Amino acid sequence: MSLAGSRPQPDGPVRGRPRSEAVERAILEGVMKLLEDGVPLAELSIERVARTAGVGKATIYRRWSGKEELFIDVVRAAEPPDPELPGTSLRDDLVVLLETLRQRGLATRSSALLHNVYAQIKHTPRLWLEYHDSVIAPRRRLALEVLRRARDNGELRADVDLELANDMFVGPMLVRSIMRPDGDLPEDLAEKIVDAVLEGLRPVSSTAS
Amino acid sequence: MSLAGSRPQPDGPVRGRPRSEAVERAILEGVMKLLEDGVPLAELSIERVARTAGVGKATIYRRWSGKEELFIDVVRAAEPPDPELPGTSLRDDLVVLLETLRQRGLATRSSALLHNVYAQIKHTPRLWLEYHDSVIAPRRRLALEVLRRARDNGELRADVDLELANDMFVGPMLVRSIMRPDGDLPEDLAEKIVDAVLEGLRPVSSTAS
Repeated sequence: MSLAGSRPQPDGPVRGRPRSEAVERAILEGVMKLLEDGVPLAELSIERVARTAGVGKATIYRRWSGKEELFIDVVRAAEPPDPELPGTSLRDDLVVLLETLRQRGLATRSSALLHNVYAQIKHTPRLWLEYHDSVIAPRRRLALEVLRRARDNGELRADVDLELANDMFVGPMLVRSIMRPDGDLPEDLAEKIVDAVLEGLRPVSSTAS
Repeated sequence: MSLAGSRPQPDGPVRGRPRSEAVERAILEGVMKLLEDGVPLAELSIERVARTAGVGKATIYRRWSGKEELFIDVVRAAEPPDPELPGTSLRDDLVVLLETLRQRGLATRSSALLHNVYAQIKHTPRLWLEYHDSVIAPRRRLALEVLRRARDNGELRADVDLELANDMFVGPMLVRSIMRPDGDLPEDLAEKIVDAVLEGLRPVSSTAS
Protein backbone atom coordinates (compact mmCIF):
# COMPACT_ATOMS: atom_id res chain seq x y z
CA MET A 1 0.00 0.00 0.00
CA SER A 2 1.67 3.21 -1.12
CA LEU A 3 0.75 6.80 -1.60
CA ALA A 4 2.89 7.08 -4.70
CA GLY A 5 0.12 6.50 -7.23
CA SER A 6 -2.31 9.08 -6.04
CA ARG A 7 -0.01 11.80 -4.72
CA PRO A 8 2.80 12.19 -7.23
CA GLN A 9 5.61 14.49 -6.26
CA PRO A 10 6.01 16.94 -9.15
CA ASP A 11 9.54 17.14 -10.55
CA GLY A 12 9.05 20.58 -12.02
CA PRO A 13 8.29 23.79 -10.14
CA VAL A 14 6.61 22.95 -6.86
CA ARG A 15 3.02 24.11 -6.70
CA GLY A 16 0.85 24.68 -3.65
CA ARG A 17 2.16 24.45 -0.10
CA PRO A 18 5.05 22.00 -0.28
CA ARG A 19 6.02 22.07 3.38
CA SER A 20 2.47 21.55 4.47
CA GLU A 21 2.08 18.75 1.94
CA ALA A 22 5.17 16.98 3.20
CA VAL A 23 3.84 17.11 6.74
CA GLU A 24 0.47 15.82 5.64
CA ARG A 25 2.17 13.03 3.76
CA ALA A 26 4.22 12.04 6.80
CA ILE A 27 1.09 11.87 8.90
CA LEU A 28 -0.84 9.76 6.38
CA GLU A 29 2.13 7.42 6.00
CA GLY A 30 2.36 7.19 9.78
CA VAL A 31 -1.24 6.00 9.98
CA MET A 32 -0.62 3.54 7.18
CA LYS A 33 2.42 2.14 8.95
CA LEU A 34 0.43 1.63 12.15
CA LEU A 35 -2.38 -0.09 10.20
CA GLU A 36 0.17 -2.27 8.43
CA ASP A 37 1.60 -3.22 11.82
CA GLY A 38 -1.87 -4.51 12.65
CA VAL A 39 -3.07 -1.71 14.93
CA PRO A 40 -6.88 -1.71 14.68
CA LEU A 41 -8.75 1.54 14.14
CA ALA A 42 -10.09 1.33 17.68
CA GLU A 43 -6.56 1.55 19.08
CA LEU A 44 -5.33 4.17 16.66
CA SER A 45 -4.99 7.30 18.78
CA ILE A 46 -4.00 10.72 17.48
CA GLU A 47 -1.18 10.66 20.01
CA ARG A 48 0.21 7.45 18.59
CA VAL A 49 -0.07 8.76 15.03
CA ALA A 50 1.74 11.95 16.05
CA ARG A 51 4.55 9.94 17.63
CA THR A 52 4.90 7.71 14.55
CA ALA A 53 4.90 10.64 12.13
CA GLY A 54 7.26 12.72 14.28
CA VAL A 55 4.90 15.68 14.57
CA GLY A 56 2.97 17.28 17.38
CA LYS A 57 -0.66 16.41 18.10
CA ALA A 58 -1.69 19.99 17.35
CA THR A 59 -0.24 19.66 13.84
CA ILE A 60 -2.62 16.79 13.22
CA TYR A 61 -5.62 18.48 14.79
CA ARG A 62 -5.07 21.54 12.61
CA ARG A 63 -5.79 19.30 9.59
CA TRP A 64 -8.20 16.64 10.83
CA SER A 65 -10.88 16.85 13.48
CA GLY A 66 -10.37 13.26 14.58
CA LYS A 67 -8.96 9.87 13.80
CA GLU A 68 -11.88 8.82 11.61
CA GLU A 69 -11.37 11.77 9.26
CA LEU A 70 -7.69 10.93 9.20
CA PHE A 71 -8.44 7.28 8.49
CA ILE A 72 -10.69 8.09 5.55
CA ASP A 73 -8.02 10.38 4.08
CA VAL A 74 -5.50 7.56 4.31
CA VAL A 75 -7.85 5.31 2.38
CA ARG A 76 -8.54 8.01 -0.16
CA ALA A 77 -4.82 8.62 -0.66
CA ALA A 78 -4.17 4.89 -1.08
CA GLU A 79 -6.82 4.57 -3.79
CA PRO A 80 -5.36 3.89 -7.20
CA PRO A 81 -5.42 7.01 -9.40
CA ASP A 82 -8.46 7.39 -11.62
CA PRO A 83 -7.83 5.40 -14.77
CA GLU A 84 -6.89 7.23 -17.95
CA LEU A 85 -9.63 6.41 -20.45
CA PRO A 86 -8.35 5.77 -23.98
CA GLY A 87 -11.45 7.40 -25.51
CA THR A 88 -11.06 5.29 -28.66
CA SER A 89 -14.33 3.40 -28.24
CA LEU A 90 -16.95 2.55 -25.67
CA ARG A 91 -15.51 -0.95 -25.46
CA ASP A 92 -11.98 0.30 -24.76
CA ASP A 93 -13.14 2.74 -22.08
CA LEU A 94 -15.28 0.11 -20.36
CA VAL A 95 -12.48 -2.45 -20.36
CA VAL A 96 -10.22 0.05 -18.59
CA LEU A 97 -12.92 0.92 -16.05
CA LEU A 98 -13.65 -2.74 -15.26
CA GLU A 99 -9.97 -3.63 -15.17
CA THR A 100 -9.57 -1.05 -12.40
CA LEU A 101 -12.25 -2.87 -10.40
CA ARG A 102 -10.54 -6.21 -11.05
CA GLN A 103 -7.20 -4.81 -9.86
CA ARG A 104 -8.84 -3.44 -6.74
CA GLY A 105 -10.34 -6.86 -6.08
CA LEU A 106 -6.96 -8.54 -6.45
CA ALA A 107 -5.26 -5.94 -4.23
CA THR A 108 -7.87 -6.31 -1.50
CA ARG A 109 -7.51 -10.09 -1.57
CA SER A 110 -3.76 -10.09 -1.38
CA SER A 111 -3.53 -7.47 1.36
CA ALA A 112 -4.97 -8.33 4.74
CA LEU A 113 -4.44 -4.66 5.57
CA LEU A 114 -6.62 -3.39 2.71
CA HIS A 115 -9.16 -6.06 3.45
CA ASN A 116 -9.43 -4.97 7.07
CA VAL A 117 -9.49 -1.30 6.17
CA TYR A 118 -12.43 -1.82 3.81
CA ALA A 119 -14.19 -4.00 6.36
CA GLN A 120 -13.88 -1.20 8.93
CA ILE A 121 -15.29 1.28 6.45
CA LYS A 122 -18.24 -0.90 5.53
CA HIS A 123 -19.19 -1.45 9.15
CA THR A 124 -18.96 2.19 10.17
CA PRO A 125 -21.85 4.03 8.50
CA ARG A 126 -20.21 7.46 8.71
CA LEU A 127 -16.95 6.21 7.15
CA TRP A 128 -18.91 4.34 4.49
CA LEU A 129 -20.81 7.48 3.54
CA GLU A 130 -17.61 9.47 3.26
CA TYR A 131 -15.94 6.77 1.22
CA HIS A 132 -18.99 6.49 -1.01
CA ASP A 133 -19.19 10.22 -1.64
CA SER A 134 -15.50 10.78 -2.23
CA VAL A 135 -14.48 7.59 -4.06
CA ILE A 136 -17.40 5.56 -5.37
CA ALA A 137 -19.77 8.31 -6.52
CA PRO A 138 -17.27 10.15 -8.78
CA ARG A 139 -16.27 6.85 -10.43
CA ARG A 140 -19.91 6.04 -11.05
CA ARG A 141 -20.50 9.48 -12.57
CA LEU A 142 -17.52 8.91 -14.88
CA ALA A 143 -18.91 5.56 -16.06
CA LEU A 144 -22.36 7.04 -16.66
CA GLU A 145 -20.78 9.84 -18.70
CA VAL A 146 -18.94 7.28 -20.86
CA LEU A 147 -22.20 5.40 -21.39
CA ARG A 148 -24.16 8.56 -22.19
CA ARG A 149 -21.63 9.57 -24.85
CA ALA A 150 -21.80 6.08 -26.36
CA ARG A 151 -25.57 6.20 -26.49
CA ASP A 152 -25.37 9.56 -28.26
CA ASN A 153 -22.77 8.09 -30.69
CA GLY A 154 -24.86 5.08 -31.53
CA GLU A 155 -22.44 2.65 -29.85
CA LEU A 156 -25.29 1.70 -27.50
CA ARG A 157 -28.92 1.22 -28.42
CA ALA A 158 -30.82 4.49 -28.29
CA ASP A 159 -33.31 3.12 -25.75
CA VAL A 160 -30.69 1.89 -23.28
CA ASP A 161 -31.32 2.74 -19.61
CA LEU A 162 -27.92 4.15 -18.61
CA GLU A 163 -28.17 3.29 -14.92
CA LEU A 164 -29.11 -0.28 -15.77
CA ALA A 165 -26.34 -0.49 -18.37
CA ASN A 166 -23.83 0.63 -15.76
CA ASP A 167 -25.00 -2.06 -13.35
CA MET A 168 -24.81 -4.63 -16.13
CA PHE A 169 -21.13 -3.90 -16.76
CA VAL A 170 -20.08 -3.32 -13.16
CA GLY A 171 -22.31 -5.92 -11.46
CA PRO A 172 -20.62 -9.10 -12.70
CA MET A 173 -17.17 -7.76 -11.79
CA LEU A 174 -18.28 -6.69 -8.31
CA VAL A 175 -19.99 -10.01 -7.66
CA ARG A 176 -16.76 -11.79 -8.55
CA SER A 177 -14.35 -9.50 -6.76
CA ILE A 178 -16.27 -8.42 -3.66
CA MET A 179 -19.25 -10.65 -2.93
CA ARG A 180 -17.60 -13.96 -3.73
CA PRO A 181 -14.21 -14.01 -2.02
CA ASP A 182 -13.15 -17.07 -4.04
CA GLY A 183 -14.51 -15.78 -7.35
CA ASP A 184 -12.23 -16.30 -10.33
CA LEU A 185 -10.57 -13.07 -11.55
CA PRO A 186 -8.71 -14.10 -14.74
CA GLU A 187 -6.71 -11.53 -16.70
CA ASP A 188 -9.20 -11.23 -19.53
CA LEU A 189 -12.27 -10.93 -17.30
CA ALA A 190 -12.88 -7.22 -18.01
CA GLU A 191 -12.83 -7.83 -21.78
CA LYS A 192 -15.02 -10.90 -21.51
CA ILE A 193 -17.67 -9.07 -19.48
CA VAL A 194 -17.70 -5.99 -21.71
CA ASP A 195 -17.98 -8.03 -24.92
CA ALA A 196 -20.64 -10.35 -23.55
CA VAL A 197 -22.78 -7.48 -22.23
CA LEU A 198 -22.48 -5.57 -25.51
CA GLU A 199 -23.25 -8.57 -27.73
CA GLY A 200 -25.75 -10.37 -25.52
CA LEU A 201 -25.91 -14.08 -24.76
CA ARG A 202 -28.48 -15.19 -27.32
CA PRO A 203 -27.29 -16.98 -30.43
CA VAL A 204 -26.69 -14.45 -33.21
CA SER A 205 -29.45 -16.03 -35.24
CA SER A 206 -31.80 -18.83 -34.28
CA THR A 207 -29.68 -21.25 -36.32
CA ALA A 208 -26.36 -20.08 -34.90
CA SER A 209 -25.99 -22.61 -32.11
CA MET B 1 -40.80 -12.87 9.01
CA SER B 2 -42.71 -16.13 9.13
CA LEU B 3 -41.96 -19.79 8.90
CA ALA B 4 -45.11 -20.49 6.91
CA GLY B 5 -43.51 -20.35 3.49
CA SER B 6 -40.68 -22.76 4.06
CA ARG B 7 -42.17 -25.20 6.54
CA PRO B 8 -45.71 -25.90 5.39
CA GLN B 9 -47.83 -28.06 7.65
CA PRO B 10 -49.21 -30.83 5.48
CA ASP B 11 -53.01 -31.14 5.57
CA GLY B 12 -52.98 -34.79 4.58
CA PRO B 13 -51.45 -37.66 6.53
CA VAL B 14 -48.67 -36.34 8.76
CA ARG B 15 -45.22 -37.52 7.70
CA GLY B 16 -42.07 -37.70 9.79
CA ARG B 17 -42.00 -36.98 13.51
CA PRO B 18 -44.84 -34.52 14.10
CA ARG B 19 -44.30 -33.99 17.81
CA SER B 20 -40.62 -33.38 17.35
CA GLU B 21 -41.36 -31.01 14.47
CA ALA B 22 -43.80 -29.00 16.55
CA VAL B 23 -41.22 -28.60 19.29
CA GLU B 24 -38.57 -27.57 16.80
CA ARG B 25 -40.99 -25.07 15.32
CA ALA B 26 -41.77 -23.59 18.72
CA ILE B 27 -38.08 -23.15 19.43
CA LEU B 28 -37.34 -21.49 16.07
CA GLU B 29 -40.32 -19.19 16.50
CA GLY B 30 -39.13 -18.36 20.00
CA VAL B 31 -35.76 -17.23 18.65
CA MET B 32 -37.52 -15.23 15.95
CA LYS B 33 -39.70 -13.52 18.51
CA LEU B 34 -36.66 -12.55 20.58
CA LEU B 35 -34.88 -11.21 17.50
CA GLU B 36 -38.00 -9.28 16.52
CA ASP B 37 -38.09 -7.81 20.01
CA GLY B 38 -34.63 -6.46 19.28
CA VAL B 39 -32.53 -8.90 21.32
CA PRO B 40 -29.09 -8.99 19.65
CA LEU B 41 -27.41 -12.32 18.96
CA ALA B 42 -24.85 -11.60 21.68
CA GLU B 43 -27.60 -11.54 24.30
CA LEU B 44 -29.54 -14.47 22.94
CA SER B 45 -28.93 -17.24 25.48
CA ILE B 46 -30.19 -20.81 25.16
CA GLU B 47 -31.84 -20.29 28.54
CA ARG B 48 -33.79 -17.32 27.28
CA VAL B 49 -34.82 -19.16 24.12
CA ALA B 50 -35.99 -22.12 26.22
CA ARG B 51 -38.09 -19.84 28.42
CA THR B 52 -39.65 -18.10 25.40
CA ALA B 53 -40.44 -21.37 23.62
CA GLY B 54 -41.72 -23.04 26.78
CA VAL B 55 -39.30 -25.96 26.61
CA GLY B 56 -36.39 -27.16 28.70
CA LYS B 57 -32.80 -26.24 27.84
CA ALA B 58 -32.00 -29.93 27.31
CA THR B 59 -34.67 -30.10 24.60
CA ILE B 60 -32.81 -27.40 22.70
CA TYR B 61 -29.37 -28.90 23.25
CA ARG B 62 -30.60 -32.25 21.93
CA ARG B 63 -31.15 -30.51 18.57
CA TRP B 64 -28.56 -27.74 18.39
CA SER B 65 -25.07 -27.61 19.81
CA GLY B 66 -25.26 -23.88 20.48
CA LYS B 67 -26.98 -20.61 19.81
CA GLU B 68 -25.16 -19.95 16.54
CA GLU B 69 -26.40 -23.23 15.04
CA LEU B 70 -29.87 -22.31 16.24
CA PHE B 71 -29.58 -18.84 14.76
CA ILE B 72 -28.58 -20.15 11.35
CA ASP B 73 -31.51 -22.57 11.37
CA VAL B 74 -33.88 -19.72 12.12
CA VAL B 75 -32.54 -17.83 9.14
CA ARG B 76 -32.76 -20.91 6.94
CA ALA B 77 -36.37 -21.51 8.00
CA ALA B 78 -37.29 -17.89 7.30
CA GLU B 79 -35.87 -18.03 3.78
CA PRO B 80 -38.55 -17.84 1.12
CA PRO B 81 -39.19 -21.24 -0.46
CA ASP B 82 -37.21 -22.02 -3.59
CA PRO B 83 -39.05 -20.50 -6.52
CA GLU B 84 -41.06 -22.78 -8.79
CA LEU B 85 -39.50 -22.45 -12.23
CA PRO B 86 -42.03 -22.32 -15.07
CA GLY B 87 -39.67 -24.25 -17.37
CA THR B 88 -41.29 -22.67 -20.43
CA SER B 89 -38.15 -20.85 -21.58
CA LEU B 90 -34.78 -19.68 -20.35
CA ARG B 91 -36.16 -16.16 -20.16
CA ASP B 92 -39.12 -17.16 -18.01
CA ASP B 93 -36.95 -19.19 -15.61
CA LEU B 94 -34.41 -16.40 -15.24
CA VAL B 95 -37.08 -13.79 -14.60
CA VAL B 96 -38.43 -15.91 -11.74
CA LEU B 97 -34.94 -16.44 -10.30
CA LEU B 98 -34.09 -12.72 -10.43
CA GLU B 99 -37.50 -11.72 -9.10
CA THR B 100 -36.74 -13.83 -6.02
CA LEU B 101 -33.57 -11.79 -5.48
CA ARG B 102 -35.50 -8.56 -5.94
CA GLN B 103 -38.12 -9.64 -3.41
CA ARG B 104 -35.39 -10.57 -0.96
CA GLY B 105 -33.84 -7.15 -1.46
CA LEU B 106 -37.16 -5.42 -0.78
CA ALA B 107 -37.83 -7.61 2.29
CA THR B 108 -34.40 -6.90 3.75
CA ARG B 109 -34.86 -3.16 3.24
CA SER B 110 -38.29 -3.04 4.84
CA SER B 111 -37.40 -5.25 7.80
CA ALA B 112 -34.87 -3.93 10.28
CA LEU B 113 -34.89 -7.42 11.77
CA LEU B 114 -33.89 -9.15 8.53
CA HIS B 115 -31.35 -6.44 7.86
CA ASN B 116 -29.73 -6.98 11.25
CA VAL B 117 -29.84 -10.74 10.95
CA TYR B 118 -28.03 -10.66 7.60
CA ALA B 119 -25.52 -8.13 8.96
CA GLN B 120 -24.73 -10.50 11.84
CA ILE B 121 -24.27 -13.37 9.42
CA LYS B 122 -21.99 -11.40 7.13
CA HIS B 123 -19.75 -10.32 10.01
CA THR B 124 -19.43 -13.76 11.56
CA PRO B 125 -17.33 -15.90 9.21
CA ARG B 126 -18.63 -19.23 10.55
CA LEU B 127 -22.28 -18.16 10.17
CA TRP B 128 -21.55 -16.77 6.74
CA LEU B 129 -20.03 -20.05 5.60
CA GLU B 130 -23.02 -22.01 6.88
CA TYR B 131 -25.43 -19.61 5.23
CA HIS B 132 -23.47 -19.76 2.01
CA ASP B 133 -23.38 -23.56 1.92
CA SER B 134 -26.99 -24.11 2.88
CA VAL B 135 -28.75 -21.22 1.12
CA ILE B 136 -26.63 -19.49 -1.51
CA ALA B 137 -24.78 -22.45 -3.03
CA PRO B 138 -27.89 -24.56 -3.84
CA ARG B 139 -29.55 -21.54 -5.48
CA ARG B 140 -26.44 -20.95 -7.56
CA ARG B 141 -26.35 -24.58 -8.63
CA LEU B 142 -30.00 -24.29 -9.70
CA ALA B 143 -29.27 -21.20 -11.81
CA LEU B 144 -26.25 -22.86 -13.43
CA GLU B 145 -28.39 -25.89 -14.27
CA VAL B 146 -30.99 -23.66 -15.94
CA LEU B 147 -28.23 -21.99 -17.96
CA ARG B 148 -26.61 -25.30 -18.94
CA ARG B 149 -29.94 -26.62 -20.24
CA ALA B 150 -30.45 -23.41 -22.23
CA ARG B 151 -26.99 -23.69 -23.78
CA ASP B 152 -27.76 -27.27 -24.79
CA ASN B 153 -31.12 -26.12 -26.24
CA GLY B 154 -29.57 -23.33 -28.25
CA GLU B 155 -31.27 -20.60 -26.19
CA LEU B 156 -27.79 -19.39 -25.27
CA ARG B 157 -24.79 -19.15 -27.55
CA ALA B 158 -22.87 -22.41 -27.65
CA ASP B 159 -19.66 -20.72 -26.49
CA VAL B 160 -21.18 -19.06 -23.42
CA ASP B 161 -19.20 -19.35 -20.18
CA LEU B 162 -21.92 -20.49 -17.78
CA GLU B 163 -20.33 -19.07 -14.63
CA LEU B 164 -19.89 -15.71 -16.31
CA ALA B 165 -23.43 -15.82 -17.68
CA ASN B 166 -24.75 -16.46 -14.19
CA ASP B 167 -22.83 -13.45 -12.84
CA MET B 168 -24.13 -11.34 -15.72
CA PHE B 169 -27.75 -12.05 -14.79
CA VAL B 170 -27.36 -12.02 -11.02
CA GLY B 171 -24.74 -9.26 -10.70
CA PRO B 172 -26.87 -6.26 -11.71
CA MET B 173 -29.68 -7.34 -9.36
CA LEU B 174 -27.31 -7.87 -6.44
CA VAL B 175 -25.58 -4.54 -7.02
CA ARG B 176 -28.97 -2.84 -6.91
CA SER B 177 -30.45 -4.75 -4.00
CA ILE B 178 -27.48 -5.37 -1.72
CA MET B 179 -24.52 -3.15 -2.52
CA ARG B 180 -26.46 0.06 -3.14
CA PRO B 181 -28.97 0.46 -0.31
CA ASP B 182 -30.81 3.19 -2.22
CA GLY B 183 -30.73 1.37 -5.57
CA ASP B 184 -33.98 1.48 -7.52
CA LEU B 185 -35.86 -1.87 -7.52
CA PRO B 186 -38.81 -1.28 -9.88
CA GLU B 187 -41.33 -4.05 -10.52
CA ASP B 188 -40.08 -4.88 -13.98
CA LEU B 189 -36.38 -4.92 -13.07
CA ALA B 190 -35.97 -8.72 -13.36
CA GLU B 191 -37.45 -8.69 -16.87
CA LYS B 192 -35.41 -5.69 -17.93
CA ILE B 193 -32.14 -7.26 -16.78
CA VAL B 194 -32.87 -10.65 -18.35
CA ASP B 195 -33.88 -9.15 -21.71
CA ALA B 196 -30.97 -6.72 -21.81
CA VAL B 197 -28.40 -9.42 -20.97
CA LEU B 198 -29.86 -11.81 -23.54
CA GLU B 199 -30.08 -9.21 -26.31
CA GLY B 200 -26.99 -7.17 -25.55
CA LEU B 201 -26.66 -3.39 -25.50
CA ARG B 202 -25.28 -2.77 -28.97
CA PRO B 203 -27.62 -1.45 -31.65
CA VAL B 204 -29.16 -4.35 -33.59
CA SER B 205 -27.35 -3.20 -36.72
CA SER B 206 -24.89 -0.39 -37.16
CA THR B 207 -27.65 1.80 -38.56
CA ALA B 208 -30.13 1.00 -35.83
CA SER B 209 -29.53 3.99 -33.59
